[in-house]
Amino acid sequence: MVNETQHTCSASSSSRSDGGSSSGSESSKDNSRCSTPVLDADRHERLREKMRRRQDAGDKWFSLEFFPPRTANAAVNLISRFDRMGAGGPLFIDVTWHPAGDPGSDKETSSMIIANTAVNYCGLETILHMTCCNQTKDDITGHLQKAKRLGLKNIMALRGDPAGEEWEEEVDGFNYAVDLVKHIRNEFDDYFDVCVAGYPKGHPEAESYEADLRHLKEKVFAGADFIITQLFFRPETFLKFMKDCQAIGITCPIIPGIFPIQGYHSLRQLVKLSKLEVPQEIKDVIEPIKDNDAAIRNYGVELAVSMCRELLDSGMVHGLHFYTLNREVATTEVLKRLGIWKEDPRRPLPWAVSAHPKRRVEDVRPIFWASRPKSYIYRTQEWDDFPNGRWGNSSSPAFGELKDYYLFYLKSKSPREELLKMWGEELTGEESVFEVFTCYITGEPNRNGYKVTCMPWNDDPLATETNLLKDQLEKVNRRGILTINSQPNINGKPSTDPIVGWGPSGGYVFQKAYLEFFTSSEIVTALLKVLKKYELRVNYHIVNVKGQNITNAPDLQPNAVTWGIFPGREIIQPTVVDPVSFLSWKDEAFALWIEQWAKLYEEESPSRMIIQYIHDNYYLVNLVDNDFPLENCLWQVVEDTFELLN
Amino acid sequence: MVNETQHTCSASSSSRSDGGSSSGSESSKDNSRCSTPVLDADRHERLREKMRRRQDAGDKWFSLEFFPPRTANAAVNLISRFDRMGAGGPLFIDVTWHPAGDPGSDKETSSMIIANTAVNYCGLETILHMTCCNQTKDDITGHLQKAKRLGLKNIMALRGDPAGEEWEEEVDGFNYAVDLVKHIRNEFDDYFDVCVAGYPKGHPEAESYEADLRHLKEKVFAGADFIITQLFFRPETFLKFMKDCQAIGITCPIIPGIFPIQGYHSLRQLVKLSKLEVPQEIKDVIEPIKDNDAAIRNYGVELAVSMCRELLDSGMVHGLHFYTLNREVATTEVLKRLGIWKEDPRRPLPWAVSAHPKRRVEDVRPIFWASRPKSYIYRTQEWDDFPNGRWGNSSSPAFGELKDYYLFYLKSKSPREELLKMWGEELTGEESVFEVFTCYITGEPNRNGYKVTCMPWNDDPLATETNLLKDQLEKVNRRGILTINSQPNINGKPSTDPIVGWGPSGGYVFQKAYLEFFTSSEIVTALLKVLKKYELRVNYHIVNVKGQNITNAPDLQPNAVTWGIFPGREIIQPTVVDPVSFLSWKDEAFALWIEQWAKLYEEESPSRMIIQYIHDNYYLVNLVDNDFPLENCLWQVVEDTFELLN
Repeated sequence: MVNETQHTCSASSSSRSDGGSSSGSESSKDNSRCSTPVLDADRHERLREKMRRRQDAGDKWFSLEFFPPRTANAAVNLISRFDRMGAGGPLFIDVTWHPAGDPGSDKETSSMIIANTAVNYCGLETILHMTCCNQTKDDITGHLQKAKRLGLKNIMALRGDPAGEEWEEEVDGFNYAVDLVKHIRNEFDDYFDVCVAGYPKGHPEAESYEADLRHLKEKVFAGADFIITQLFFRPETFLKFMKDCQAIGITCPIIPGIFPIQGYHSLRQLVKLSKLEVPQEIKDVIEPIKDNDAAIRNYGVELAVSMCRELLDSGMVHGLHFYTLNREVATTEVLKRLGIWKEDPRRPLPWAVSAHPKRRVEDVRPIFWASRPKSYIYRTQEWDDFPNGRWGNSSSPAFGELKDYYLFYLKSKSPREELLKMWGEELTGEESVFEVFTCYITGEPNRNGYKVTCMPWNDDPLATETNLLKDQLEKVNRRGILTINSQPNINGKPSTDPIVGWGPSGGYVFQKAYLEFFTSSEIVTALLKVLKKYELRVNYHIVNVKGQNITNAPDLQPNAVTWGIFPGREIIQPTVVDPVSFLSWKDEAFALWIEQWAKLYEEESPSRMIIQYIHDNYYLVNLVDNDFPLENCLWQVVEDTFELLN
Repeated sequence: MVNETQHTCSASSSSRSDGGSSSGSESSKDNSRCSTPVLDADRHERLREKMRRRQDAGDKWFSLEFFPPRTANAAVNLISRFDRMGAGGPLFIDVTWHPAGDPGSDKETSSMIIANTAVNYCGLETILHMTCCNQTKDDITGHLQKAKRLGLKNIMALRGDPAGEEWEEEVDGFNYAVDLVKHIRNEFDDYFDVCVAGYPKGHPEAESYEADLRHLKEKVFAGADFIITQLFFRPETFLKFMKDCQAIGITCPIIPGIFPIQGYHSLRQLVKLSKLEVPQEIKDVIEPIKDNDAAIRNYGVELAVSMCRELLDSGMVHGLHFYTLNREVATTEVLKRLGIWKEDPRRPLPWAVSAHPKRRVEDVRPIFWASRPKSYIYRTQEWDDFPNGRWGNSSSPAFGELKDYYLFYLKSKSPREELLKMWGEELTGEESVFEVFTCYITGEPNRNGYKVTCMPWNDDPLATETNLLKDQLEKVNRRGILTINSQPNINGKPSTDPIVGWGPSGGYVFQKAYLEFFTSSEIVTALLKVLKKYELRVNYHIVNVKGQNITNAPDLQPNAVTWGIFPGREIIQPTVVDPVSFLSWKDEAFALWIEQWAKLYEEESPSRMIIQYIHDNYYLVNLVDNDFPLENCLWQVVEDTFELLN
C-alpha cells in the first residue's frame, strides 16, 4: 500500500530500502549520516548548489559586486559595508581583480585580502575575480592556491585587458578566459565553482554576436558553472541573449548584471570602459539633469527597479547581480523596492558564522568574543578543527595571540579625534571612566555633549538584546561595575523571536543570564562574600591581568549559556562560558584598555595613568545564573555587593 | 587582596596563574580540559579513587559478594538480582573464582562471564576474584588479559586452596597471593586495582597471627590497593585487627567482610570451609532455633545490624563488604536498617550506564532500546568509540547483528509455560494480540486470569514514567496501535524529580513526547493522511519488516528527545531518535515477534500463523512531537487516525 517513500537523502536511503529483511548492520555502514545538525543548509552547500536550491524553491536572490579600495581607511569602511549589506542576505558577493593593484598580495587593499576578509570575517559567500592575460601559469596557480588556502571557493575567470595595443596571442599562454577555466579544472579539479562573463550585446572585440556566443559556450563546456553578464540597459537585451544561449545548448544559470545608474560621471566612465552604448531614451532623461546627483540616482533606482521587475516576471531570471560601485544607497533601495532585501534575516546561530569551508561545522563559541567576532576568528584561524556539538571535545584550546590590534578588519571605525570626544579628552579619575561606560549604556550624551557609540570592547552601539537590560546596566555602571558583555535569561522563546531568536523556525531558544564586567578589587572582595550565598546557583570566574584566577566552575568544564531545541534535530548550544578560553580572552580584554584607550593620551599624562591604573588593578569578572527558568539573580548579587560595601 | 584561589583542577590552574601577564595561548595548550561534561564522577574514577572520595566525604558505602551460579537458569536469575541489588547503590560487587568450575571460560556460569555481565550489562563496578595456586604463569596471564579485554578493572588476588593434601611450594611458581599481586603489577603495571584478603583471626594455616599480619603487609607492599577481610563474628575482632595492621604500617583501606547469618546449614558449611569458630554466645541462640529458618534469619539480621553499627560508629570503618551467598533478603534488610541502601538512587543519565572503561564517555543512545539496554550494549560491544555529546559525530553506526536471542543476559526471566499463560495458549486472531498488549498496559489479568507482566520488547512491568500515559495507552492498544515504547513531554522539571529526573541536582530536564508502536497497513494509510496536518510539528518514521521506509526526518538527522541543563556544564542530550539506527532496531523489534512469541507455538499452528502474519504485514511506527512546551499532540494524531478510519 505505501509506495510513496519520502527520502531526504535519496541515494543512501534507497540502498537501505533495498536491503529488505537483511540486517540493518550492513545498511547502516554507509556514510550518509550527517556529521552535524545542519541548521543552515547554506553552510554545507557549494555556491552552485545554493543557486539550484533557490531556483527549485522559487526563491529570488541577489548578489553584490565590489572593487578593492585604494587606501587602508577605505578598506575599513568597505568591511563595515560588507557587514551592513551582508545583513540584507545576498547569495554571494564578488570582488574584482585589478592587475595594476597587486591583486594577489597580502596588502590590505588587494583583491585577495578583501575577498579573504569577506569570507572569513564577514561570513559572506564570495567570488574572487581573476584575470589571466599577460600572466604566467605559475603566477596563476599561485594565486589559485592562495585563494584556496584562504577559504575562497569561487573564481570568476576572466581574460582581463591586454596591456598595450599590440597584444598578440601567446602560444600555450593564457589568451582567453577559457584557458583560465581549463587551467582551474586541470589543476584544481572540482574544488572551485567557476563563473564566467557573458556579454548580452556581444564582447566589443568579438567578430560577431554569434561568434561571441560560441566563445561563451566554449567557456561553459570547459567547466564553468554559471555566467554573470555585463551590464545592459534594456531587459529585452538580456532576455534575447538568454534565449540565444539556450538555443545553442548553454544550460547553466545565467545571471543578469544590473547597474543602477548612480551619477552622470560614473555612468560615462563605465560606458567608456565597457564600450557600451547608452540608449537614446536614457540619454534624453539624464542629459538635462546631469548636475543633479539626487535626481539622477532617483531615476537610476526607478529604471533598475522596473528592469529587474520585468526580468523576474519573465520567469527566466531567479537571481540578480548588482554592480554596486562600492556604494550602498542605490542598490539597497532597489533591493528593498523589489522586496528581496531581507529586512529581518534569520540568524542560523546567535553569532555571525564564518564562510571558510574549514569552519562549516563550527557551532560552539565562547561568549567572551560576542562583540568582537572578527578577533575570535582571527585568533582561531590556525585551528584545524572547530568545535561542533560540544566545546570540550573538538576545539583546539590554543588561541593565537592578538598582537596587532591594528589589523584593518579589527580596527575601530572611528578615528582618534572622535574616540577622544566620546571617551574624554582628559580623564579626572576612575569616576570619569564610569561615566563613559554609563553613557555608552544609556545612549545619553556625555558631559561634553557627545554620544558614546562605541567602546574598546564593542565597536557598535548596544545590541537590541542588551537593551533589554538597559536600566539595570546603567545603575551598576554608575557605581563602578563596568559591564562589557551581558545577556538576559530566556526560558524557551520561539526561535523566530525578532530579538533573541535564531536557527530554523519551529524551535525554542534558551539562555542563562550572563554578566561580564571590570571592577575594582574592593568590589571583588565584597562580591566574593556575597557569592557564597549563591554558591549552587551562580558560576563565576574572576581574574586580574596577572592571571590570578578565582572560580567555582566544576572541573573547569564549559557552561552552556545559549542553546536551542529544533524539530528533528539534536540540541544546538552555540555559546558557552569556558573557563580555559576565558584566560585567553582576559589577555585581550585587558590589553584593549591600553591599546584602544590609554594610547589615545600622551605618555605619563594623568588620563593615561588612570587607564593604566585600572588595567593594572581591576578584575575581570563573569557571572552565570544557572537557574534560567527563574528571575535573573545577578542583579541581586550586585545589589547585595553594593549593600555590603555601604 | 584576593589570595584564596579556589581551584578545582589545581595542577593545571596553578600553571595558568603563574603565566601572569603572558599570553593565554601558552597556558591553554595544556591537556587539563575535561573532554566530556562529567555528570557522574564515578564513571571516570578507579575503584580506589571512589573509595577515597567517599571516605573523604564521610559517605558510608557497602559492597556485595556473589559466587557464580551452577546452571544457565540460575545465571539469568543472578543477573536480575544484580539489577535489583545494584539499584541500592553498592560501591562494587565481587564475583568469586571457582577453580573447579572452569572460571576463566566463556560458559555462561563461569566467574569471568558473570563478572563480565555485571560490568558491561548491569553497569556495576566489579572485582573478579582470581586464585593462583596450581596454575601456570601463562594461564594466569591469559585470564588477566581476558579480564582486561572484557572491561574488568579490579582483581581480588588470592592463593586459593591447594589441590590435594600434599601440596608443596613450587620454585618460581605461584605459591601465595603475594606472587599473584607481584605478577599483576609486573605484567599489567597499574591497570588493575588489586584487592587482597585479610584474616582478622589470622589465616588458619599461618604460623601465627603476627606472621599472618606480616604476610598481609607483604601483599600490600607488593602493590595491593585495599584489603577485604574474612568474615568474623565480633566487631572487636575486626577493630583489633585493623589497629594491628596500622601498627605495622598497613595504611590502605581495610574493609570488614560481613556475613549475615541466613540459616543453620549455610553457617555450618561456611564455618567448616573457613575454619572459623562460632562464638559460644551465638551458638547458644542458634542451636535452639536451628529448624526455624525465619527465626535464624531474623537473628542474623539483628546481629549483623548491631555489629555493623558498632563498626561504623568506631569511625575507623567507611565501607562494609557483604557475603550475600547470592541471596537478597537478609543483606538488603541489613542495609536498609543501617540506612545505607539507596532508596531512590540518583540516575546519572536516564538509561543505565555500562561500567566498561571504553564506554565511560558514552552519553547518547537511541531511544529504541530503552527497554532492552542489554541488547543495545551487546550490539554495540565492538564499537571503538561511543557517542559523546552528539549522536551524529562520534558513534559508529554499524550495529552488530542480534542472532542469538538466547544469550542468558538477554533471555526472558519467565519460562515458556508462564509466557504462554500471559500471552495466550491459543490465539484466535489479531484481536487477541491487541488484548495481550492492553493487559500489559492496564495491569489487569487477561481472560484466563493471568497478569501480563512482560512483553517480548520489555521484560519488566510498565515503567513508572510510562504509567503517566496509562489511560491513553490503554485506549489505543485496544484498537490495534500496539505500543512498545513511549515517553511523555517534559518542559523543564527539576533534575531531582523522582520520576523523570536524572543527572546532578540543580538542573532541569526536558523531553519531547515519543510514541512507538506496531500497527496494520490499514491504520498506517490513515495515519499518513493525518500526519500531513502535523507536518511541521511531528517527525515520523514508518517501516515494515522488508525495510520499506517512510519518514519526514530532515536529512536523516537524529532528533534529541531527552536533554538536561545543569549548572556549570554543557547540555546533555542522552536520548535521540535516530533514523539510521531505527532500521537496525526494526530488525530486532520484528524478530522478537517470532523469536519470543511465535516460537512458543507449534509450527503451522493457527496461533503461530497469527503472529507470523503480524510480523510480515504490520509496520513499526515512531512519532515525536517537537513542540515540547505545548500539550502532547500525539494522542490527537492517533485519535484523528481512528476517526478517519470510521
